[in-house]
Amino acid sequence: MSNKHHDHVEKHFTASDLIRDIVIGMSDGLTVPFALAAGLSGSVASTALILTAGSAEIAAGAIAMGLGGYLAARTEAEHYDTELKREWREIEVVPEREEEEVAEIFREYELEEEQIQSIIQTLKKKPEKWVDLMMRFELGLEKPDPSRARNSAITIALSYILGGLVPLLPYFFMAQPISGLKVSAIITLIALAIFGYVKGRFTGTSPWKSSFQTTVVGGLAAGAAFLLARLIS
Amino acid sequence: MSNKHHDHVEKHFTASDLIRDIVIGMSDGLTVPFALAAGLSGSVASTALILTAGSAEIAAGAIAMGLGGYLAARTEAEHYDTELKREWREIEVVPEREEEEVAEIFREYELEEEQIQSIIQTLKKKPEKWVDLMMRFELGLEKPDPSRARNSAITIALSYILGGLVPLLPYFFMAQPISGLKVSAIITLIALAIFGYVKGRFTGTSPWKSSFQTTVVGGLAAGAAFLLARLIS
Repeated sequence: MSNKHHDHVEKHFTASDLIRDIVIGMSDGLTVPFALAAGLSGSVASTALILTAGSAEIAAGAIAMGLGGYLAARTEAEHYDTELKREWREIEVVPEREEEEVAEIFREYELEEEQIQSIIQTLKKKPEKWVDLMMRFELGLEKPDPSRARNSAITIALSYILGGLVPLLPYFFMAQPISGLKVSAIITLIALAIFGYVKGRFTGTSPWKSSFQTTVVGGLAAGAAFLLARLIS
Repeated sequence: MSNKHHDHVEKHFTASDLIRDIVIGMSDGLTVPFALAAGLSGSVASTALILTAGSAEIAAGAIAMGLGGYLAARTEAEHYDTELKREWREIEVVPEREEEEVAEIFREYELEEEQIQSIIQTLKKKPEKWVDLMMRFELGLEKPDPSRARNSAITIALSYILGGLVPLLPYFFMAQPISGLKVSAIITLIALAIFGYVKGRFTGTSPWKSSFQTTVVGGLAAGAAFLLARLIS
């Protein structure tokens, strides 16, 4: 039985915050610098320029995504605190209204009025449990981890940089942009396929399907950038 | 009283899916192409090249983010369906275990055992309500909107393109990269400040703080890209 329960918990497993941040940073890091380098390869004469543009893009993307992740996590934490204070105030100032809100939550699941009134009486004796229940069941908010913002920023930025270096690497060793692009496309599409597979395993979707989708998105973005840059230049 | 309740609902208002998607697309669209153009402005001789690289980046970013949003929404919907089927099966095959899980949920809020047993008896008579309750309270999952994936992809991609055109526009009218950068920096930082303000209003954080943060992130990313591109070229 305990073993069965263990299985059950494992199957419900979905991406943790860390894995979510790595996935966010790396999927854009592998895709956007790859596409930019591909776009430029069809329209400029030297790999030096591709390296300059690619590095600028990686720096910009890592900062924008990392700080973006930081601010998102901070905003979420502040939102939680604001709502928590509001719920406390409401329970003290307008308890009848909050009781009605508890009743509405449970009526949705067709509990009987008698049961609902009994639940309300119990919660009124334990206001901190009442507030917890409102936060989770009325507002759908979970208490955020205080170190989340900083960790999230660092993880996203590093994953973006790591992902972005893969497509740029070949251009360091080749003089002709088109030769660089050929090697870059091969290693980046392989990296996208592996990344998509691993992502699928961690997020609980089919790994092969995830691998296929990730590779197609990266390939399409690079192809579109290549064509558009050719048209414009 | 009804007016008070209305206030209460409005204050709890947070970003809808549409606004969330516009924010996702536009904040990256205003930031990354701006930073790339700034980076190149310090190290290349012609604005034509900046326009080529910038357009390639916008195409790549819009496709990568749009398809990324599409796949994320699809994965979420599939995850919901999988878990829904699992809950139905568990309620049929191992009802005692699921009853214990209901009890665990409510013990967290210190309801009495008697109340909990009474809730379980009611839920057993209405299995579809039981499953709904497990989905929301055990797993924290909300039923996803079926048209979300497509709408999300289109909104994110268009917002990215719209945001990305702002910093590129000046380079169409100027021959010197550095002159282009000056105008680009002015209009993009203004656009970021306005965007941040509006975003703050819609997401329920302080508009001025959001405006300041958004502008600083954009400015830092552009500054870092400019310095890195100078160092490399």
